[in-house]
Formats: sequence, C-alpha cells, structure tokens
Amino acid sequence: MEIEFLGTGAGQPSKQRNVASLALKLLDELNEIWLFDVGEATQHQILKTNIRLRKVTRIFISHNHGDHIFGLPGLLATRSFQGDVGPLTIYGPPGLEQFVRTSLRVSRTKVSYPIKFVELTEGGLIYRGQGFKVYTDKLDHRVPSFGYRVVEDSRPGELLMDKLAQYHIPNGPLLGKLKNGEQIALSDGTVINGKDFLGPERAGRIISIIYDTRSTPSIAKLAENADVLVHESTFAGNEAKLAHSYYHSTAVEAAEVARDNGVKQLCLDHISARYLGNKAKRLEKQAQKVFPNTKLVNDFDQILIPMKGTEK
Amino acid sequence: MEIEFLGTGAGQPSKQRNVASLALKLLDELNEIWLFDVGEATQHQILKTNIRLRKVTRIFISHNHGDHIFGLPGLLATRSFQGDVGPLTIYGPPGLEQFVRTSLRVSRTKVSYPIKFVELTEGGLIYRGQGFKVYTDKLDHRVPSFGYRVVEDSRPGELLMDKLAQYHIPNGPLLGKLKNGEQIALSDGTVINGKDFLGPERAGRIISIIYDTRSTPSIAKLAENADVLVHESTFAGNEAKLAHSYYHSTAVEAAEVARDNGVKQLCLDHISARYLGNKAKRLEKQAQKVFPNTKLVNDFDQILIPMKGTEK
Ligand SMILES: [Zn+2]
Ligand SMILES: [Zn+2]
Repeated sequence: MEIEFLGTGAGQPSKQRNVASLALKLLDELNEIWLFDVGEATQHQILKTNIRLRKVTRIFISHNHGDHIFGLPGLLATRSFQGDVGPLTIYGPPGLEQFVRTSLRVSRTKVSYPIKFVELTEGGLIYRGQGFKVYTDKLDHRVPSFGYRVVEDSRPGELLMDKLAQYHIPNGPLLGKLKNGEQIALSDGTVINGKDFLGPERAGRIISIIYDTRSTPSIAKLAENADVLVHESTFAGNEAKLAHSYYHSTAVEAAEVARDNGVKQLCLDHISARYLGNKAKRLEKQAQKVFPNTKLVNDFDQILIPMKGTEK
Repeated sequence: MEIEFLGTGAGQPSKQRNVASLALKLLDELNEIWLFDVGEATQHQILKTNIRLRKVTRIFISHNHGDHIFGLPGLLATRSFQGDVGPLTIYGPPGLEQFVRTSLRVSRTKVSYPIKFVELTEGGLIYRGQGFKVYTDKLDHRVPSFGYRVVEDSRPGELLMDKLAQYHIPNGPLLGKLKNGEQIALSDGTVINGKDFLGPERAGRIISIIYDTRSTPSIAKLAENADVLVHESTFAGNEAKLAHSYYHSTAVEAAEVARDNGVKQLCLDHISARYLGNKAKRLEKQAQKVFPNTKLVNDFDQILIPMKGTEK
C-alpha cells in the first residue's frame, strides 16, 4: 500500500506543483488504485508514473472546485483507450455527476466502461468490500467538501507454530484450515480448533485524506489513529485567521489534528504557490514543532504504508 | 505575428505532445493573443511560455471533442487570477457554451471578466475589426468541425519619396497626410494628392487553421493564398482510406491543399502518437514531396509570419 502524490498545489497549477490529486495504490491488496481528487492534467501527471488508468477503479472527490475536478473528463476519456477496462465508481458532492455527464455528452465521448456515481450529502460508510471500508464526513469549506477515511479490515492473527509443534501437523490443507480459525480432526482422533492457536488480530491500516477545509470538529474522527493523515495546508502556521476566513487550514492546525488523534504520519498537502522552496520548508518546520513526523509533500512523492506488525 | 504551437498531438496527451492548442500572437499588431483550440493542460503548456493569459482575448474552437476543449474551464478560471483582465470572446460549435457554463457553475468559478460566446452553425465572416477579419467554414468530421481563416487588412502603399523629392516637403504633419492618401496645399499654392504618391497596397497576411477533418472542398477556400496553413495530419500519406473512414486527413492530403491553393508555408499538426521520432519525420517527408515548404510541428515550435514586403 502506497500513496503517490500527483498534484500537491492549491488553486492553480504552477511550475512546481500541479493541482490536487493523489493515488492510493492498493496493488498488493486489490490490484487496484483509488484516486482522490482529479485536478486538470492529472492524466498528464500519471503519464510520468507507473500508474495504469485501467487499474483505477474508484475515484473519491472532496469538493467541486475546479482545481479538484477539471481533470476528470479527460482522464475518463483516456481510460477508455486502455483496452479491456472494468467499471469505475466516482464518489463526490452533488453537481459532480452533472459536470462529468455534460462534459462527456458535449464532447461525444463514449466511454467503454460503466461509470457509477455515488452522490455524497452527509457523513457515513460509503464503501465496504474486499477488505476495506471507506467512511466520509462533511468538512467546512466554502462549498460542500468531504474528508475520507479508508480503513483496512483487521487480519486474523498469525498461526502460533510453536504452540502447535506437539501435534506434528504436516504442511498442507490442515494448516490452512487452522489459519482460517477452523476446527480439524487429526488421524488419531484429536480435535484442534484453529482459534486456540491464532495470535492476536492484526489491525488494518488507516488512511485519512482531508482536502479543502478550515479547522472543524469532524476531522478528528476521520483522522483518528490514522497511519497516514494527508491534510491540506494552504496557509502558514501564523495565518490562522486568514485561513479561517478563506475556509482553509494552516500547517499548524493540520499538525494539531495529527498530535491529538493518535496519527502516525502527517503529510502536508495542497500547498499554495506563495510558499516556494524554503518558504515551504518553513511550513513543514512549523508543523513539525507540533507533530514531529510531518512531511510536506511534493508532486510524485511516494509514501509506503507497511502492514502493521511488519514495520520496525 | 507569430504562431506558437502549444499542443500538437491527436486524441490523448502523450509524453511527446499535448492535445490540441495553438496561439496566434498578434502582439505587435493588437497586443493580443488568440487561441485556437484548448485541449486539457493548455494552461500548463502556457506556463512554460511567455504567454500571459491576460492577453488572450479570443478563443476559436474547431470542434467539441475532448482533446480540443477540456482545457477551457481551467484556463478561464486561471485567467481570472491575472489581475485586471478584459473581456473574452469564444467562438465554437453548439454545445460548447453549455460545457463551459456547466463547468464554471458546478465548480462555483466566478470569472472576473465577461465571456461572450459566438455559436457557429455555418460558414461566413465571424469577426471584423482592428485590422483583421476572421472567416470560418464547415469541415467534414464526425462532429461539427470548423476551419478558420484569419485575414489581415491590406495596408496602404508606402509613400514614394523619390517621386515627391521635387516638392521639398519638410518632415512633419504634411508628409503624414500624404501617407494617409490625403490632399495638401503647399505654401506656393501647389496642391498635391497623397494618392498619387503612394506605392501599391500591401496585402495583409493570411493564416488558415484546419483542425480535425477529412479532405473536403471547403478547405481550399479557407486555405487560399495563406501565408501559413496549419493543417491536421492524423494519418500518413499511404493511409488515405483509413483517414477518410476516421474523418481525418493524411499528411499528403494536407500538402495537396497547400500546393493547389497558393499557400506559402504548411505546418502539419495534430500528429498521432503512433508516429514517434523518425516515423513523424516520414510523414513530413511524404508531404514535402508534394509541397516542399512543409514543417511537421512540435509542441512549443514558433513560426514567425513576417509582414509582406519585409520578407526577403
Ligand atoms: Zn483546493
Ligand atoms: Zn482531435
């Protein structure tokens, strides 16, 4: 599981940062990639990566501002050219479907796969299946804006081989059944219940993605215990009033969310073109004073999120 | 007067070529820039040039396929951030306005300047003013597609100083009147008519832009005597049947238009990603056999179009 940042800028593209998009790469887990926001030229950014559009199965949109959605029509059209492509589901606020359908209709784009829209109007569970759940909740932006929380199902504990050793169970299907917590009978009549030989359940990973919003209580629950929290950071730490009046967050507000909610790693995203080079570093340092494991991300940065119990 | 090519590809962006757009730079003439087609990420391409969006006053769209229009909403939004910007006029086929208005409305983009749409349904004169006329005509594509012909007004001939020498007219307002073809009276009562001392009118420049179409008779009149003909060239010379069935043109068809209609220079544009490097060179050579002054253009190529009478 990896996050690849495709656009880390705010408002307009600049030479340094494209407008908003990131890819949650679930290749080992599902052989799928999920996109969060699709600013203009996201497909151009993808051309510079190993991402194949065929693998993109779900797209989650935070809000309908142009720098977060204007890349959708082109990306959907280009996905059609990738040969045998499966269905796609797009989650987002009201109006998004009309924008996409109008764009495809006027341009006479006939996509080769079904597109399903899930219109968001309130918080809650919006996806469950294949080992993942996705929750959303309303944020506080000038227009309806949604944060996302991707929660991997917990995995059963590992089979405790030491404890099992006395039974001399051969490698093969019997061990598999025990791993699944099932009951087996040995040739001598002994009955063993897998559940008695499994270690503790291993928690799944949690990714929280908070695009455009000002500081608001719903963020805490979305971010709780996240392995990675991606949080907008449109303003510097000393600009809380300005951020509030523009319905955005500061780097320090993002860090406070991370610190107060058991987050493991914070990625500052949605960086204004006003903060170039060293000025961006300053945002990062401000946040690190509050929450040390903070990284201000750049286009094409990749963050590996190791399975729990495997990280050192 | 210059043409700067912003996207010279066909259908989808590739690493080598962006989707369609070109800028006709009328900086010396009008201090304005006119765009022809605005594929996705045209504003990103513009970031790599000296073009300022504030100077873009007219946008001409050939047809509504996504690779020719999906960059419009983002470009219009970004133009708003350029401070004091004047009105913008967009010419294009039916449906274009709905695409743009829906995109701006859903994204709550309030542009800071008036946008006027001129909907094209048939050929004719669509702009006249400030020393230029623009004509359009229908092409033959899968969807309504329009070619454009920009004609600079002819300029009055130069004042023939040798012929005037006998009158010993001092530098100043009298000479200016003669230049304008007006009549003046000298102090000795001699009356001189400027019209008798002007050389022949100098013809204006003609730029013809033919995006997606298959070979069709309307092209000839749009291209007639063009100083520069930009013509789509989606297929190679030996693929006329394929081009026809896909409603596109071959490099050789473009060259035949140039040869048969008194064109001075041909630019092959809208190049498929199937033709990379040497393969694109082959298209160019096929066309050059028919019309030697042919150039297959790449993104960011610039073509200078000198005033008539000034080129060598
Ligand atoms: Zn934004
Ligand atoms: Zn095209």
